[in-house]
Order: sequence, then structure tokens, then C-alpha cells
Amino acid sequence: MTAHYVLVHGACHTGAEMEATAAHIREAGYSTHCPTLAGNRPEDDRRAVGLEDAVRSLIDYIEAEDLRDVRLAGHSYGGMVIAQVVDRIPERISRVIFCNAFVPLDGEALVDLVPPHYAALFAALAAENNQSVTFPFPVFREAFMNDATLAFAQECYQKLNLQPYRTFTDPAHLQTPLAESAVGKSYVNCQQDTALPHSLPWHPRLSERLGLFRLVECPGSHELLFTDPKRFAQAILEAGRD
Amino acid sequence: MTAHYVLVHGACHTGAEMEATAAHIREAGYSTHCPTLAGNRPEDDRRAVGLEDAVRSLIDYIEAEDLRDVRLAGHSYGGMVIAQVVDRIPERISRVIFCNAFVPLDGEALVDLVPPHYAALFAALAAENNQSVTFPFPVFREAFMNDATLAFAQECYQKLNLQPYRTFTDPAHLQTPLAESAVGKSYVNCQQDTALPHSLPWHPRLSERLGLFRLVECPGSHELLFTDPKRFAQAILEAGRD
Amino acid sequence: MTAHYVLVHGACHTGAEMEATAAHIREAGYSTHCPTLAGNRPEDDRRAVGLEDAVRSLIDYIEAEDLRDVRLAGHSYGGMVIAQVVDRIPERISRVIFCNAFVPLDGEALVDLVPPHYAALFAALAAENNQSVTFPFPVFREAFMNDATLAFAQECYQKLNLQPYRTFTDPAHLQTPLAESAVGKSYVNCQQDTALPHSLPWHPRLSERLGLFRLVECPGSHELLFTDPKRFAQAILEAGRD
Repeated sequence: MTAHYVLVHGACHTGAEMEATAAHIREAGYSTHCPTLAGNRPEDDRRAVGLEDAVRSLIDYIEAEDLRDVRLAGHSYGGMVIAQVVDRIPERISRVIFCNAFVPLDGEALVDLVPPHYAALFAALAAENNQSVTFPFPVFREAFMNDATLAFAQECYQKLNLQPYRTFTDPAHLQTPLAESAVGKSYVNCQQDTALPHSLPWHPRLSERLGLFRLVECPGSHELLFTDPKRFAQAILEAGRD
Repeated sequence: MTAHYVLVHGACHTGAEMEATAAHIREAGYSTHCPTLAGNRPEDDRRAVGLEDAVRSLIDYIEAEDLRDVRLAGHSYGGMVIAQVVDRIPERISRVIFCNAFVPLDGEALVDLVPPHYAALFAALAAENNQSVTFPFPVFREAFMNDATLAFAQECYQKLNLQPYRTFTDPAHLQTPLAESAVGKSYVNCQQDTALPHSLPWHPRLSERLGLFRLVECPGSHELLFTDPKRFAQAILEAGRD
Repeated sequence: MTAHYVLVHGACHTGAEMEATAAHIREAGYSTHCPTLAGNRPEDDRRAVGLEDAVRSLIDYIEAEDLRDVRLAGHSYGGMVIAQVVDRIPERISRVIFCNAFVPLDGEALVDLVPPHYAALFAALAAENNQSVTFPFPVFREAFMNDATLAFAQECYQKLNLQPYRTFTDPAHLQTPLAESAVGKSYVNCQQDTALPHSLPWHPRLSERLGLFRLVECPGSHELLFTDPKRFAQAILEAGRD
């Protein structure tokens, strides 16, 4: 039985944006999958999709491909999804890898884990934009792609899609807290990631919710998948190995 | 129109100490200036100069040179100065870059932003030394140049000049809080800088006062301008680009 | 007179595990010693040895070898020991170097400095295991050797020995708080060391108890002595120089 890596994208992204990282993981010899979650596909109705749809779509993908010994990595919002997937189908997952990702407790939504001014921004954007949200470019450029040139940040920004607001406000449902899960757990922290402010940081604030976990850190921003996918892949491999 | 970098030194330093860093920024193609603030010039009366004099001297320099599209970097105490300069002549400044620098709110002095034992040390030194202060060598060597040899720390220490105490106790005056300024904002954090203790750190404690800002980090001490000016210049360039 | 490095191992380790690091320090031209503390020798009765025995054994070693101008580095639990040794024989010590090491105040035991769930784990292990403790392998692999392969973590784990529980519960006795000691002080922080959780970290929580100290940081886990002894030696040399 061979380990499979499954890379789950963040909000406003699709699996396509994980492919550069996946290519480096495949070079290391692992079958690697980059599905796109329900809610981020071109055809999805952003008003209709909620967090459970995203979770269900990932479970369906893993079951349809009949993947086992999965190293399940989630980036950013993807953490809300993989947290619930490992809760439902732990027998298929060897390790969950949160990459500057949200780690919910039972009953928490993504908006509960961000600063109040972000939650207010999302609510305002959703009201204006048919219950979908994206990141204003100045925020994306300064806080998400601080390690890129302006031109490259603009190029990457063009690839983003609208995120269904409900996926940010629907609570996660967990039978077992992640800290008590018997599955292996890792956290990849890109050290210059200010998508969450460092006064309310990804690590250790959210990472330590995993209980016993393996920390892997590397330099880089929230969008290391764009700015240095090779380095991101290395971190995921160090986080994902037994 | 070409961007200009203006590098503003910290307390007890002059523009001369920024020249090694400036040389690397010039190599990248930018006109780069290293003025010496009022209060740090050989002829200045340390009892007479206050924070406003330092601010005025920098505005005068930028206006005399008629610089526009300025990337205005301030190191350490220099943050007290550039914060007020961007408040007064925002039309000339494209971006402020705080390099392990103080970020004041309106009405705050430098001594309000340091640990109480530092404020007490400065007051005691000023009382003994004609209202001027410098850093005792053991503090400079251990907390400011922790990445240097002893011999090099001694050599650099010889270059320091006395700092007018009033520049540390005069409050900053800001019409617009930096968090609300429309000018681009960056923070360069040298990660082993313990000139401020890491329990009361430069970043994120002071950096987040900038509101939306770009974080750039690199290894190094408070005096990276001495210990690795090339690396410091790279960080400033990544912080200063659009 | 030539400086001597003395490297003091952590809990469950012996001097033998410091030898790879010592070899790199010797290459830099320094005589380097790696004694094994009382309590960690094969013949020691784990029920009988306390913290004072460990302290005494290190003082005896330094005096028997008549070492002066000692750069005394302690790793992890070794910090409990070197803190007291420098308090007793400061005339022989030029600098103490705490390497992700405990820094006690007078009257504190190691168990006072760890999270409550670690203290409870040690107590439970000691009750089961003749008043000695070791780290469960999953904890060692994930939180102590997060930068290693599983195979190498297993190999290193085989080298560990049982730690007398009393060395964790006996309080340190200090005549002079470390913050007031005139001896040079450094702290080496391996940045991905999660042997203590980053919400209750080595640095700056414990390092700042040293008062004026020199910070040296490098990437790596708690067991950098296994995973990259050359890098560990470099950090110790930068921490130990005048």
C-alpha cells in the first residue's frame, strides 16, 4: 500500500492552484491529488453551497478514488474541511496536515477564528456580492503575498474565484476533538504568513488545538503555493511522513 | 519618475552608518539617500535638540532635494521620525518602511514604548551626561549586536554618537494615525533583534499599529546594517517595492 | 589560558550524545568536554539520585579537570544543573549557554516550568516505573524530533536512558538570581523546538530570566544535537564567544 497525498485548497482557490506544489510531491514518489471542493467550482451556485457540501465533496472524492493511507493536507480554509473529513473517515487517513489552516473546535465557524474586523469585512462583502466573498486586492497583496512582486501578485489574484459566504459562517461538526484523534497530525507554518495577524496567529494559537502534533516551519507567505511551491512541497513532505 | 530610497538612521547613529546598506540598494538601480537627522550631527547641542527638530530636518532634506515617490525607511528611533514625516508630507512618500522601528501613536514618546527598566536607564544616563544618552557597551554587544564578534561590536560601537534625551521623551504628533494613512506601509523585522525584549517585541506589538502592512523578515540582530548590510538591503527592497 | 567548552546533556541523555556536536566545536579549536551527569550513568540508582547529585557531579568534573574560562552549555534539563553550577563556582565560568534549556528561579523545580499535563505525565510514569521517567516515543518523535525521519527518530530513541524523577521535582537553589549574575549569559533557541509548547515557550519566557543575555537562534528541533550537530555547534560557538 502506497501513501497518497491529497492537497486541499483554501478559500477562493481551486485544486489547479495546488498543482505546482503537487508536482514536487509527485517527484518524491507519491501519488498526489488536488481536488476542487464544492463551492469553488465554476458551475457552483455561491448562494447555495455551505461547509457541509465542501466536506461531502472531499469525502466523495476520496471514496470514489478509493484512497487509503491518505496524507491529507489542507491550506487555510481547507483546514475547516479536512478537520471534518478526518473525523468522518479516519480509517482512510494516516495523517492530517494543516498548512496555515484553520483548526476548528466542534461548533466553530471560520468567522469565529478570525479577527473581528475580518469577520465584519466578509459580512459586508457578502451583502454586496450575492452571498459570496473574495479578498480585496490590497489585502491579498500585502497580507497574503508579501513575498511576491506586485506583477506576480496581480497575476495570481486573477486566478481566484468567489467563495460562498456560508462556508465561512457554517459551524464545523466534529464527533471527536482533533486533540483526541488517533490520526497523525502536523502543522505547517509559513513564518511570514500575515493572513492572520501575528497577534492572533495561526501557530501556536490554532496549531495547538491538534494536541500532540508535529510542527514544520519554513519562510514564506500565506501563498507559498504560488511563491515557492517547491519549498511548500518540502514542508508538506516533512509534515506528512510517518 | 523614479523611486528614491531614503534611509533614516536610529538613535546614536548617523547617515554614514547606513551607507553600506545604501550601496546595495543603489546596485538594484535606485537613487538612495542617507541624511543625518538633527541631533546626531557633530555640531548639534544635545541639550537643545528635540524630536520636532529631527522631524523638521528630514522634511527639509526631502524638500531641498525635491524627492518624490520616496520609499522612506526608518531604523529603530528613526521610526519616531518617519511616522511624523509621512503624516506631514504624504504626497512625497510612496511607502514607509519601519525597520525594527518604533511606531508611535499620537502623543506617545519613544520612552513610552520601551520596557520600564530601559526608560529608567535612559533617564539616569541623561542626568549624568548633559541630557544625552548612549547605550552601555555590554547592552549594545549582547542585545544589539548578538550576531557579531566582540571585536566587530567594539569597532561599530566607536562610531556611535550621543543621542539628545529630549528626542526620546518628546511626544510624536500625528494628524492621521498610521493605521489610517493611505500611504503604503511595510515592516522589516530582523528576527534575532533583542534591542527590545521578545516579550515586548517590535513585531507584532508595534508593527500592527500600521494597520494593513507588509511584513518582511530576515535573520539578524538590531544592527544588521553593520553585520549584513546586503541582507538588510534585500529586506528593504522587498519591503519597499510596490 | 584557553577557553574550554563543557556541554551538559539533557534528561534521558548522556554525554555520549553530545559528542557529535563537540567534534565540531573542537574543529573550531576549543577543548570540549561532554561529561555525563550523576543520575544518567548506567550504574546509577534512579531512585536515589536527586538534582543536587547531578549538580555536584558537574562541579566535581570541572574541578577535577581544573577547567577555567569555561563556556558552560546546558541542553534542556541541563539548564537546571548549569544554573546552579555557575552560582557555586562562578570564578571558573566565563559564560553560561542555555540551549532550549530550563532557567530556574531559586526554589523552582523543572516540573514547575512545564505545562501541567507534562507534570502529570511525569508523575504517572514515575509511579509506574520505579521513580524514573522517559518520554513516550510518540511524544519524542512528534515534539522532540519533528525534523527527522521516523527511522532516525527510532534510532536515537534507543539511546535514551531513564531519568531519575527526583531530578525533576527537586528545587534549584540559587544564591544569586541568574539575572544578577556577572557571568556572561546566552540563550540558544532552536526555532522548531516544541518540546515545550510554543504557547508556553523556551524563549522568551525562560530566556529572559537571564537578564541581559545574548540570543542566538537557528532552525531545528529539540534534538538538533542528533539532527544537525554541525548547526548546533555553530549556534553554541556564536553564543559562547566573548
